Amino acid sequence: MENQKRTEISEVGEFGLIDRLSQQFTNRHASTLKGIGDDAAVIDLGDGTVQVVTTDLLIEGVHFDLSYCPLQHLGFKAIAVNVSDVAAMNAIPQQVTVSIALSNRFSVEAVEALYEGIRMAAEHYAVDVIGGDTTASRSGLVISVTAMGVAKKEEISYRSGAQLNDIVCVTGDLGGALIGLQILEREKQVYLADPNMKPDLEKYAYVTGRQLRPQARMDIIHELKEMGVVPTSMLDVSDGLASELFHICKQSACGVTIYEDKLPIDKQTFDTAVELGLDPITCVLNGGEDYELLFTIQQKDFKTLEKHPDIHFIGHISPASEGKSLVTKSGTVVNLKAQGWKHF
Amino acid sequence: MENQKRTEISEVGEFGLIDRLSQQFTNRHASTLKGIGDDAAVIDLGDGTVQVVTTDLLIEGVHFDLSYCPLQHLGFKAIAVNVSDVAAMNAIPQQVTVSIALSNRFSVEAVEALYEGIRMAAEHYAVDVIGGDTTASRSGLVISVTAMGVAKKEEISYRSGAQLNDIVCVTGDLGGALIGLQILEREKQVYLADPNMKPDLEKYAYVTGRQLRPQARMDIIHELKEMGVVPTSMLDVSDGLASELFHICKQSACGVTIYEDKLPIDKQTFDTAVELGLDPITCVLNGGEDYELLFTIQQKDFKTLEKHPDIHFIGHISPASEGKSLVTKSGTVVNLKAQGWKHF
Repeated sequence: MENQKRTEISEVGEFGLIDRLSQQFTNRHASTLKGIGDDAAVIDLGDGTVQVVTTDLLIEGVHFDLSYCPLQHLGFKAIAVNVSDVAAMNAIPQQVTVSIALSNRFSVEAVEALYEGIRMAAEHYAVDVIGGDTTASRSGLVISVTAMGVAKKEEISYRSGAQLNDIVCVTGDLGGALIGLQILEREKQVYLADPNMKPDLEKYAYVTGRQLRPQARMDIIHELKEMGVVPTSMLDVSDGLASELFHICKQSACGVTIYEDKLPIDKQTFDTAVELGLDPITCVLNGGEDYELLFTIQQKDFKTLEKHPDIHFIGHISPASEGKSLVTKSGTVVNLKAQGWKHF
Repeated sequence: MENQKRTEISEVGEFGLIDRLSQQFTNRHASTLKGIGDDAAVIDLGDGTVQVVTTDLLIEGVHFDLSYCPLQHLGFKAIAVNVSDVAAMNAIPQQVTVSIALSNRFSVEAVEALYEGIRMAAEHYAVDVIGGDTTASRSGLVISVTAMGVAKKEEISYRSGAQLNDIVCVTGDLGGALIGLQILEREKQVYLADPNMKPDLEKYAYVTGRQLRPQARMDIIHELKEMGVVPTSMLDVSDGLASELFHICKQSACGVTIYEDKLPIDKQTFDTAVELGLDPITCVLNGGEDYELLFTIQQKDFKTLEKHPDIHFIGHISPASEGKSLVTKSGTVVNLKAQGWKHF
């Protein structure tokens, strides 16, 4: 298979590889409204209703470490991150399929703990687990989830809908999941060096919880629907705020300006970042896995959302020619860089 | 995670584990017509139309061996086996999502070969590749495909619909994929012992092709629709004929009688089985991965299908009290046993 040219995946990068692969595909069915390239695909069901479909693969040693991630939390997270992608389309999740591959180092009780988390998430997000595949693995645990949801056609928020002067909003706070991961990794090393050391994680409960028990912001989706606000564009912050802003700018052919002093960061995230010698703002901009919603709204909708305690207005959409900028607390304008998540 | 009781997965078996896990789930949405327990789940789209959803996980070293399975064939197969599950519901496939996890031992060119097979299958079966996930793996290649199809609600063939005296039909021929796998494994061992030995597989082209390039029988589904025949029950032969008959009997609460002299076997499959010292009928009954369709029809539909060159009438549905029987060529009636596929 490798007797000709060999290009390393690291040369083209994860997004480069996906771009290269997805260019091959064209859609045949009129019902396929949106294929590759958003948080979820969109299928026309007729009658003004659409279905969104999204899928995620979670691999042991890449996406999770069972030495500090309890199986029940992992099961919950596997569902939550897919529900988050459905939310990011402004749709309501309804069904999921769950496939797992596992080796015989897992007991039936361990698998049941994983499924207890899946069941709890299914209940929490009101989704039906309608199928899946259970198989053996030669090494680590693999979890593949596909989630399906529904929405009215005109309510779908694509990445490509941001317009000039739209306001950029983000929910909750950012950077916590990254900081939580750093703490869990640090404590793991301490434990490996001396198994008698008992990690004291209580002080870091918020940030480790952000990493181990992320929540899909379906609460925000329901509230937006109640308030009659349809985001002009939306995605969930899985790869880091800067990276997600780049997706919006690329697909909406626009620029963006965000303000450092508007970026939401939790006190524990901030303090722990400083303790770890990390720049808190870099963590907010480039930390992944927070699963908060990043979206843009029309100016007219600002008044409706203004008082919402968990929605933050961090900037605005600018012309593409003005690029992507961060205005620092001191008023300096710097170019925004997307580092994102690198698995390869 | 294992400080209490530890039950090995091998103690309960793959189907036992799935039973145990799936009991936890109840469906909330009226649109979920069928959840876990058939070839695919069924979602009501309203207007008399339903969507079927199925998913499969393919793991290197468990489901495929890259030392003899070219990546392009693997890509095609990953789509075909999911399309086969859609076919087994008597539905027409429309969309698929494809997720892959791969380590850096794969080059970009290798991944492109895999996707070329996926693209060819998508074209062949007229499905749109609408999304997926691409990520790193610590070890082997993982492919997860979810396929979606549509059908009229009354045309769906569940495993549970077989009725007394229905005729049991199977398409194509059986056992070939298993025999092909045996040959590929044998030649691999020969090659590992002496890398200068070049395997001569030409003689085994049909059986190795059955293993490496399985086809979903969409041709049969389209023909059945044209002829106005709706199978009372249907599934695809992925785990072996006997195992699939057990599924029909369990879910339709019936028995079955099949006849050895009616079982379809290709001459090369037969001859190679004998060469390998295997009983050809055992291969037909328990060989997996043929991806032919097994279905039951009402007596009244027999005349319509009678002359079809690729549909074989192998038996009939009997009362549950009569169990599952095989009538041998000599007229002896023996109990049918399901060995199925064991991954664990």
